[in-house]
Amino acid sequence: MLCKTSLKRLIVLGADGYLGFPVSLHFANAGFEVHAVDNLSKRFIEARVGVAPLIPLAPFNHRFDNWNLANSRCRISTHLIDIATQSRLLYNLIDELKPSVIIHFAEQPSAPYSMRGRSEAVDTQINNISGTLNLAFAIKKYAPHCHIIKLGTMGEYGTPNIDIEEGWLDIEHNGRNDRVMFPKKANSFYHLSKVHDSNNLEFAARNWNLMITDLNQGIVYGHDTDLMELSKSTTSFHYDSIFGTVINRFMIQGLCGSPLTVYGSGDQIRAYLHISDVLKCIHLAVDNPPDPGEFRVRNQFTEFKSVNDLSMIVAEALSMLGLSSEISHIVNPRLETNHHYYNPSNRSFIELGLNPLLLTPQVVYDMLVQLQPFISNVQRDSFYPTIKWDDSIS
Amino acid sequence: MLCKTSLKRLIVLGADGYLGFPVSLHFANAGFEVHAVDNLSKRFIEARVGVAPLIPLAPFNHRFDNWNLANSRCRISTHLIDIATQSRLLYNLIDELKPSVIIHFAEQPSAPYSMRGRSEAVDTQINNISGTLNLAFAIKKYAPHCHIIKLGTMGEYGTPNIDIEEGWLDIEHNGRNDRVMFPKKANSFYHLSKVHDSNNLEFAARNWNLMITDLNQGIVYGHDTDLMELSKSTTSFHYDSIFGTVINRFMIQGLCGSPLTVYGSGDQIRAYLHISDVLKCIHLAVDNPPDPGEFRVRNQFTEFKSVNDLSMIVAEALSMLGLSSEISHIVNPRLETNHHYYNPSNRSFIELGLNPLLLTPQVVYDMLVQLQPFISNVQRDSFYPTIKWDDSIS
Repeated sequence: MLCKTSLKRLIVLGADGYLGFPVSLHFANAGFEVHAVDNLSKRFIEARVGVAPLIPLAPFNHRFDNWNLANSRCRISTHLIDIATQSRLLYNLIDELKPSVIIHFAEQPSAPYSMRGRSEAVDTQINNISGTLNLAFAIKKYAPHCHIIKLGTMGEYGTPNIDIEEGWLDIEHNGRNDRVMFPKKANSFYHLSKVHDSNNLEFAARNWNLMITDLNQGIVYGHDTDLMELSKSTTSFHYDSIFGTVINRFMIQGLCGSPLTVYGSGDQIRAYLHISDVLKCIHLAVDNPPDPGEFRVRNQFTEFKSVNDLSMIVAEALSMLGLSSEISHIVNPRLETNHHYYNPSNRSFIELGLNPLLLTPQVVYDMLVQLQPFISNVQRDSFYPTIKWDDSIS
Repeated sequence: MLCKTSLKRLIVLGADGYLGFPVSLHFANAGFEVHAVDNLSKRFIEARVGVAPLIPLAPFNHRFDNWNLANSRCRISTHLIDIATQSRLLYNLIDELKPSVIIHFAEQPSAPYSMRGRSEAVDTQINNISGTLNLAFAIKKYAPHCHIIKLGTMGEYGTPNIDIEEGWLDIEHNGRNDRVMFPKKANSFYHLSKVHDSNNLEFAARNWNLMITDLNQGIVYGHDTDLMELSKSTTSFHYDSIFGTVINRFMIQGLCGSPLTVYGSGDQIRAYLHISDVLKCIHLAVDNPPDPGEFRVRNQFTEFKSVNDLSMIVAEALSMLGLSSEISHIVNPRLETNHHYYNPSNRSFIELGLNPLLLTPQVVYDMLVQLQPFISNVQRDSFYPTIKWDDSIS
């Protein structure tokens, strides 16, 4: 534990979430003065759609209590602010703290939720766009040298028939050349909200000379990081069809003796990374800020695999635990291409020295062992998708 | 006047505006059953920023009175609905009318207003995105075979160093090919809102099999159309720095004996069209719907010129009226590249038979003669830009 006397100030927006929480701990542990901000909207959506994280969470303002007791010189402060609707509270915070870095996770994070119906689609886009715009204006006014790190998703790109570069693309057309934003083709109103954010932030960087990193993140899996033990707390781990990411869901399905439900053919290829690599990547992004006026995009993932590959790796890990598992293909509720080219680049983090933890049956086995004690908490009916892309309610 | 007994139903959203009003008259005159919808937000913004159209307008529900008196078999109905916040009223309207075509102008239309500060930036994006999403959901639910025609802007593309195609681009990268949405680089939060709309609508067309035409419109000039006389009414003509487009502003400045104020070097090249060509283009778009599931993009302009070219054409027209004029370069309040390549395509409308009315001193002279009687209404202080792109208030 590296607490320093002269701390670098860092704000985590969305610090009550799956990633915002461990990221807050990580930077406190690395010697930053961390301010954790959230509006608790994910807890509200959980209640609304009737799902819960596997392990119940303490109230936001108490989640860091154990950490703060043990680490009095690098306490994490919590701030209850809705950055989408309480712009003046956000302005006051930025003005008072003048942070060096802001890590922005504070968005509605579920693609299925955004496809539930009109109200959820509009709310997702308004929430995500307003919060990000408010942040850009606040930084321009009160901390123009602060490095904004914004979480986007690899899903913004869709599955183009060309190699996916990191946010920008050199193109030639009719004998002339330009460097353009990489064309995107998102497949949900959630993913589109992230595309809109990226377009807004690219303009904000260019117009106001801000330093902005946009991280197009793959699908994260895993629960524990070394810091959980230090903090005697847990993150918001979901396995349901609304917030649960695919590997996390497969692991819980397998531990419950339920079939691992693959959407469609399972040939869809996506990019993935372990939750501990999220911490490594974001730390590398913090240490390598863009120039003023630069909109720097990094693709944050460690490997890409088909959903069928994932299901087989999880099944193998389950068998190491003595559990047999069934893989069941169900009708894909999403708009997705089953068979497609996929070749995204993650050169940027590899060049910065990222040493990834790749998905193996052993890695899954270790996660299964951690998760097994909590299986009595599982709501099995939440495994199955209730939201269909082509038939959103209105 | 072609009123028919079996009318095709058409809704114009934003029918109180500069273009929505003449477009409503045009389609009523062409034999459509026209429903004119607006929330009057432009009147509210005018009041808020302290500008007014050159010629005062009747209240929205009375603007079509003369038309309706003279054309009882193709009356235009007005509906006061805010499509961004009153989704249920919009749903009811679509459900009752089951329109064949919807022409969607109902967006906050001013780039400078969107750059005024945080509140205006967020309001512009929320208004424009919410209204367009609500429309897509309403059409999916109640009129899935209705053709949505959405007004976008050539400003979405910015000024790339490559030829600008119509919405889509065939690209080759590392030896592989794809057809992608044309990469955009907008230069205001207003223009970005239109980019976001386009991305949302492309997904809506693909996901729900809707028929959507996106019109990337150039900068419109002019006041009168043949229909104004028929309707004994006028459209919302602005010459101020918030809502006034550049040629309209130059004409009024010249008629007042004020300098024509060119932003920056004046070498910026933009795409333009006369208001009467807007009617022709939209009619061609109505007559040529896309296939279900197709997101069809057409670039709606007739020519492109530098701002310096425009100022000289207007100056020449002013001299035909016996007025001398001064051209004055002022600091550009916007983020714009002064010297740039610009070669956009408008092939789509030309192939459909559009016969453009091009900008000549004679065309400007004819407009000047129409506008001259109203010069006593002009607020000269509204000529000058008060909103700076790099220094939006917060």
